[in-house]
Amino acid sequence: MSAALPTVACCAPLASPRLTEEEASATADLFKALGDPARVRIVNLIATASAAVCACELNDTLGLSQPTVSHHLKKLTDAGLLEREQRGKWAYFSLRREAVEKLASVADLKGACC
Amino acid sequence: MSAALPTVACCAPLASPRLTEEEASATADLFKALGDPARVRIVNLIATASAAVCACELNDTLGLSQPTVSHHLKKLTDAGLLEREQRGKWAYFSLRREAVEKLASVADLKGACC
Repeated sequence: MSAALPTVACCAPLASPRLTEEEASATADLFKALGDPARVRIVNLIATASAAVCACELNDTLGLSQPTVSHHLKKLTDAGLLEREQRGKWAYFSLRREAVEKLASVADLKGACC
Repeated sequence: MSAALPTVACCAPLASPRLTEEEASATADLFKALGDPARVRIVNLIATASAAVCACELNDTLGLSQPTVSHHLKKLTDAGLLEREQRGKWAYFSLRREAVEKLASVADLKGACC
């Protein structure tokens, strides 16, 4: 079960005609969540997996401790990029479709450029 | 005149089959540059302007001091997102086409999702 995700719901494309302070802040939060190499690698691993990825698999793959991986997973989940599902002892993570579409949208400046 | 931009040149899409540590780091740097509301608003203003934007116009529009605006413009230029052109006393900024395409590319997870 995942919580409501206002961060993702209210951010706006960088090329929007009028970006409010609230939209700018929400958009920045989304980028900030990805502004860390470990989080980029986690999203990359989950994006290229064929099914939800167990947190237990990420420690070894990334060469990071379990608390560090958990910290990054929480940041990404809070930002609305990941969906978390508890299965017994472990949590499994997958990409949230809505966030993926929003991310592509906010990063798309091609209509405005150059 | 702009300097070489390794950050933009070597980052990779989040859904790339194999993301090296260097690529993850460069990709994170690009997102990190946008992980601030003021920088999102600056990019938004420049993206929606019909011509290069004078740094002198941004202070009033954003309600930020000139040193703060200069700091953010430097971060965005260093990340390869903006092109800086000196015209007399003031610098003018526009989006870098290469960076815009790269940003859209690294943020595009739709092929991998969900």
